[in-house]
Amino acid sequence: MSEAFEFHLKKSESPGGPRLGQLRLSRGVVETPVFMPVGTQGTVKAITPEELQGLGAGIILSNIYHLYLRPGVEVVAALGGLHKFMNWPGAILTDSGGYQIFSLAPLRKITEEGVNFRSHLDGSSHFLTPEKVVELQRAIGADISVCLDECPGYPAPEEEVRRAAALTLRWAKRCLEARGDAANPLFAVVQGGMLPELRREQAQAFRELHFDGYCLGGLSVGEDKETTLAMLEVATPELPEDKPRYLMGVGTPEDLVEGVARGVDMFDCVLPTRNGRNGMAFTSAGKVVIKNAVYARDPEPLEEGCGCYTCRHYSRAYLRHLFLSREILAYRLLTLHNLYYYLQLMTEIRRAVAAGRFAAFRREFYEKRLEGGNTRG
Amino acid sequence: MSEAFEFHLKKSESPGGPRLGQLRLSRGVVETPVFMPVGTQGTVKAITPEELQGLGAGIILSNIYHLYLRPGVEVVAALGGLHKFMNWPGAILTDSGGYQIFSLAPLRKITEEGVNFRSHLDGSSHFLTPEKVVELQRAIGADISVCLDECPGYPAPEEEVRRAAALTLRWAKRCLEARGDAANPLFAVVQGGMLPELRREQAQAFRELHFDGYCLGGLSVGEDKETTLAMLEVATPELPEDKPRYLMGVGTPEDLVEGVARGVDMFDCVLPTRNGRNGMAFTSAGKVVIKNAVYARDPEPLEEGCGCYTCRHYSRAYLRHLFLSREILAYRLLTLHNLYYYLQLMTEIRRAVAAGRFAAFRREFYEKRLEGGNTRG
Repeated sequence: MSEAFEFHLKKSESPGGPRLGQLRLSRGVVETPVFMPVGTQGTVKAITPEELQGLGAGIILSNIYHLYLRPGVEVVAALGGLHKFMNWPGAILTDSGGYQIFSLAPLRKITEEGVNFRSHLDGSSHFLTPEKVVELQRAIGADISVCLDECPGYPAPEEEVRRAAALTLRWAKRCLEARGDAANPLFAVVQGGMLPELRREQAQAFRELHFDGYCLGGLSVGEDKETTLAMLEVATPELPEDKPRYLMGVGTPEDLVEGVARGVDMFDCVLPTRNGRNGMAFTSAGKVVIKNAVYARDPEPLEEGCGCYTCRHYSRAYLRHLFLSREILAYRLLTLHNLYYYLQLMTEIRRAVAAGRFAAFRREFYEKRLEGGNTRG
Repeated sequence: MSEAFEFHLKKSESPGGPRLGQLRLSRGVVETPVFMPVGTQGTVKAITPEELQGLGAGIILSNIYHLYLRPGVEVVAALGGLHKFMNWPGAILTDSGGYQIFSLAPLRKITEEGVNFRSHLDGSSHFLTPEKVVELQRAIGADISVCLDECPGYPAPEEEVRRAAALTLRWAKRCLEARGDAANPLFAVVQGGMLPELRREQAQAFRELHFDGYCLGGLSVGEDKETTLAMLEVATPELPEDKPRYLMGVGTPEDLVEGVARGVDMFDCVLPTRNGRNGMAFTSAGKVVIKNAVYARDPEPLEEGCGCYTCRHYSRAYLRHLFLSREILAYRLLTLHNLYYYLQLMTEIRRAVAAGRFAAFRREFYEKRLEGGNTRG
């Protein structure tokens, strides 16, 4: 366990049920459950750090795979670390890049020692080990680092999934060793594919190791929602109650609600930012596809009563015009609204858990979407 | 002359020399010489209205050709006019679209009555007259409207240039008639190609008509700099001393300095915004092409001592990383810096004219660029 990290569990309704907590990091206190906006390349796409702070974000996600390839870890370190480089005073969790190596790199070879891969940017050859990945994350000043993991594809043969999970566990132990006594908070990644008993077994095995938190990896990779949730249900009750659980790369507003219902404390996902740039806005009544002709003269904001900058100043008609004109301001305004929606949703979730009314909140959440004629964000 | 418009000439060093003035519009007072950021499609590209105000912009340029084609003037009007549509509380001057019809539309036919053209967006057919163009600009609530003009290509046969200039003058008279007693400030466009005596003759002819201001059109369309400046030199001394002169679509920082030296009061140009999006920053020492490898580890801001948001928070190394990663934030930050540079340059120009030291300012302006190893912005 690290000195620069403390997780304070404020409330837990039942093992594997909704929880309320606090991450106490050297760069501030973060209330959980929390959504972390994604800033893979050292910027949350289209948004300034001041705007992120204005939205109430206290922690963002970045990615050591991307930064290692470009601009290079030594560049970020020479410029004073990632926080200074990107002008972000809040906390940063860096993903290890395990998922990216297995999804983006055109060629890769895994050995016990580590992974050899080619850059998706220029084809250059690289070799990363668990130890190296810990070192890289420390070098850029991550507030929370993540162990190198092997993320199997989906679907994958059972033996592949078992081999990857076992390797991920052995690599995690090496990461812990490499971290040593340094004050660098380190999260493990629990894999296990879509095999419930393997997920449970892995969670149990990881439980014995003293990580600062536990990521649930390899989910929402193509499987159906029921499977994702079933995997959560077997894994979270086995993880240490006093450590945060982070569901990686997930998901829609519904996924956040369902994740919290199953004991998840942390989330990240590109959906609010990526969908914003693709012209899709999240609202409590469902999605708004801004290019639709129905909005051509619509004077209303994306969501009635929304307090975000976009909704306070711009009509759907104007946003549609900007989007059809491919104006950068369209991407900015939709991204701002979506991140506001996600962060606001998490605030409401925390309030509901604190008040012991999460079940009612969840019911109302779905009712609003049904009224909106749309059940999926 | 319109009630909603007043030009107060505060200082004029000599006929056709540097001037200091004030545009008094219903949406605020604008000090001249002024640079107007370009917001052709109802947004200054990549920037919010609040950011524009933070930069000190009091008036922006929009374009009735673009807005007429998309989203449509009736849409903008139905949404409460352009100011409300785009959330901009300052003044807006709309160009008539003369230049766009002649540079963007794939097919066009000019008659005495007006111009028939096809949209560059969807090929649809349109007919605009001088009267219609005045009406459209009024309908969206422009603070200053511009007469429909014919902008000949460059180079063009002398007879073509003469015919276009004469038609532009007849159209301008019809625009004035169409405006009538309405409180809609209207600027004429003085054409005349690269023929000095035609430019002088046109300026003299327009002088007799009571417009609120005079645009110098059809310049910086491919001719060399000396020719542009020579055209200004013959035209500005012939224009009414008590009316603002607006050099359309020009130009580099050097062009602004040289325009002011020749009696120009207003400028607009896409260079600060477009070049920003293309990775080029303007500085007092010349241009910074941010993708250059020399900036890979450069911890310095774009310009030492610059007070813009970008320079206060970000290194050249970070901006280079963002630009190479094609991050929207790169376009935002470079646009912000460039607009700041342009607006700051105009502030310095106004101070120099006010202090009676414009000649010295101009000399120092070029000296800094020579020291920077670059004489062209």
